[in-house]
Amino acid sequence: MSTILIKNVVVDGESRDIYIKNGTIRRIGVDICIDADTVLDGGGKTVMPAFVNMHTHSGMTLFRGICEDMPLKQWLDAVWKAETVLDDEFIYWGTRLACLEMIKTGTAAFADMYWSIDKAAEAVRDSGMRALLTYCFLDGGDSGKQRIQREECGRMYAISRDWPSRIQFGVSVHAHYTVSDGNMLWAADFARKHSLLIHTHISETCAENETHLARYGISPTARLHSMGLLGRDVIAAHTLWLSDEDVRMLGDSGTTVVHNVNSNLKLASGYRFRYNELRDAGANVTMGTDGAGSSNNLDLRESLKTAALVQKAWREDPAALPLDELLAMGTVNGAKALRLRSGVVEEGALADLILVDTDSPFFIPAHNFKANFIYAANSSCIDTLICDGRVLMRGGKVEGEDAVLSNAKEQASRFVERIKKL
Amino acid sequence: MSTILIKNVVVDGESRDIYIKNGTIRRIGVDICIDADTVLDGGGKTVMPAFVNMHTHSGMTLFRGICEDMPLKQWLDAVWKAETVLDDEFIYWGTRLACLEMIKTGTAAFADMYWSIDKAAEAVRDSGMRALLTYCFLDGGDSGKQRIQREECGRMYAISRDWPSRIQFGVSVHAHYTVSDGNMLWAADFARKHSLLIHTHISETCAENETHLARYGISPTARLHSMGLLGRDVIAAHTLWLSDEDVRMLGDSGTTVVHNVNSNLKLASGYRFRYNELRDAGANVTMGTDGAGSSNNLDLRESLKTAALVQKAWREDPAALPLDELLAMGTVNGAKALRLRSGVVEEGALADLILVDTDSPFFIPAHNFKANFIYAANSSCIDTLICDGRVLMRGGKVEGEDAVLSNAKEQASRFVERIKKL
Repeated sequence: MSTILIKNVVVDGESRDIYIKNGTIRRIGVDICIDADTVLDGGGKTVMPAFVNMHTHSGMTLFRGICEDMPLKQWLDAVWKAETVLDDEFIYWGTRLACLEMIKTGTAAFADMYWSIDKAAEAVRDSGMRALLTYCFLDGGDSGKQRIQREECGRMYAISRDWPSRIQFGVSVHAHYTVSDGNMLWAADFARKHSLLIHTHISETCAENETHLARYGISPTARLHSMGLLGRDVIAAHTLWLSDEDVRMLGDSGTTVVHNVNSNLKLASGYRFRYNELRDAGANVTMGTDGAGSSNNLDLRESLKTAALVQKAWREDPAALPLDELLAMGTVNGAKALRLRSGVVEEGALADLILVDTDSPFFIPAHNFKANFIYAANSSCIDTLICDGRVLMRGGKVEGEDAVLSNAKEQASRFVERIKKL
Repeated sequence: MSTILIKNVVVDGESRDIYIKNGTIRRIGVDICIDADTVLDGGGKTVMPAFVNMHTHSGMTLFRGICEDMPLKQWLDAVWKAETVLDDEFIYWGTRLACLEMIKTGTAAFADMYWSIDKAAEAVRDSGMRALLTYCFLDGGDSGKQRIQREECGRMYAISRDWPSRIQFGVSVHAHYTVSDGNMLWAADFARKHSLLIHTHISETCAENETHLARYGISPTARLHSMGLLGRDVIAAHTLWLSDEDVRMLGDSGTTVVHNVNSNLKLASGYRFRYNELRDAGANVTMGTDGAGSSNNLDLRESLKTAALVQKAWREDPAALPLDELLAMGTVNGAKALRLRSGVVEEGALADLILVDTDSPFFIPAHNFKANFIYAANSSCIDTLICDGRVLMRGGKVEGEDAVLSNAKEQASRFVERIKKL
């Protein structure tokens, strides 16, 4: 594999060079003189770990803006209707568009939950990013679907062995209210047998929780716990409506929880994400953008800002969710969940890195780089992104981006024509 | 004055040309053929009214990042201490930096409250923007200060007659808890005698309200009302902790209120801004960024996004603060408060305009331009800004920006050396 030498960048406030081999940071030092396939002049930019977006539906990026100002249930009805006209081209170009947007905003790896993951895998492969792509169980209790989905999951898993190693196969249980008990158990069993990660939604809305309580007498978290569906291999998105007992179960099991603040606010699902309690209980707290259909973008840096502001406000504590913890949510915690040694800038770690251009008003004064990066700047300050040994963006430009934009536009037009006929 | 012809831009979804003379939109049409001093090829970009930032402290931009994770009272103590070492150079370059940041993020006009407004006026003049600069009363009940400030206000007003017409002089009453009754009444009287606008802070924190109630037995809004300090010529920032009666008084008097969502969230001052009630009562609801010392940036588009998300969430209504009302808060409502005929793209209005570059992933699909602009994009999509008959930004570049950045950096370093010695 290739080698990259980055000259003249800022690491923790000091000017350094970084030598990367086989996608790994081999050396961080002063005036490193080693031949490399690619030499980047960092131009005094600041190095940060690239972001890890722990919950999105990347194929849905072409749904951006189609349903504005709707509550989750009505939004899901509109989306599920629109999803009846999807095809492989839509998934491929929607996922390419998602990857392009994530690269542009500093994300190198993401956890996904959507349909046609074989096509999604082609898109991720062509983008150069890392991803966890999950086969998604959603059967609504239909026994025919249950059987078909098990077969389909096995078939996709077989196909996934040809994926590049930066793309992981995993299993999604869409949600506790959309998947039959039988398939939840089957999916978890399949995942454990093959050491795969499990992705699900838990307690996104208050109504969903109340319906569950009325039906089962326990919370969704408690029921998933009783079925063995919590653990270090489980990624639970939203986890917004949690009792103290739920928090304890998520913490004790070391489950990864994903805060999707923009989506939760915009759909009015809620805002009291229990960050402090989940952290203190031992859960691995990470950040996600959700799909562009609900949150409108996949800009993790922007989501981090909103998460901190809202956490400070509802807790009535301006010191809540301080910058170092916030950045960990967006980087190293997500990496840990995906079983990657990344999310940090140190020798031996994967070189999934961004270079931040501080030559703009937002970075003056330079009292506090992290505050300027998260609270003042917008994501256009992210100049360069390196992932898995390749420079995916440089000077804000991504190779082949014009083709992605034009193909995505064409797919969006086709899609509009089709939903008009529904 | 100069003329500008913009060719090939999108106005309300249609391709148009726009002819500007003496800073005013004279014609919007197809294939306009008139000679103009400046011809801009719009390249299919979308025209929007430039933003109006209705509450900031622009000279404080060099305080960005110096006080992170602090509540308002502690933050004010730190800032007030730091303010003892300010000088004219700091104000001039801080304000130039603020103007540069506002132009880059699409703002053409702003309402300011800070010290040394003669120096601020030089900075605004040199930036090309419009502003309301207010002489700020803050006496803490000290009778010596009261007298000095009245004289100083009169002196600044006299100086302001030499300012270009795009810079208005106004009067600030810092807040109901920092200015003596005598000076509040004097300032209001002075303002009315000269038809000047009045700028103030009202009910930013719950604690401030409670202290006021304990002392006066009525709310800050009620007391200001009884002193004649509400009205169509009053701009009241924050207005976060309001009773129904307060809302009625602000509405009946047609007072302009300014929502500073990012600052309110970050300092944990509160999040339940009563948008619906204020709008329905007849108040003129506008948007502000507050100073970069508390909210970290002056990016009004970003503030609009946060305001809508938080409003939807706390009201538990995803349809709250819909896009058209949100954009009006950020444009035409502010213009109205500043007595400007701007904030709209129509013939006869001032041509304070931005061109939005939609050639990026955030604008695909193109189902809903306004949603893409506010919810998906970041402010780097703002390519061009025109204000008062001049093109202040083109292709994201502002004339003289490098000099502003280097001088602002130098001032920031000087400032750090000085506060170290405090």
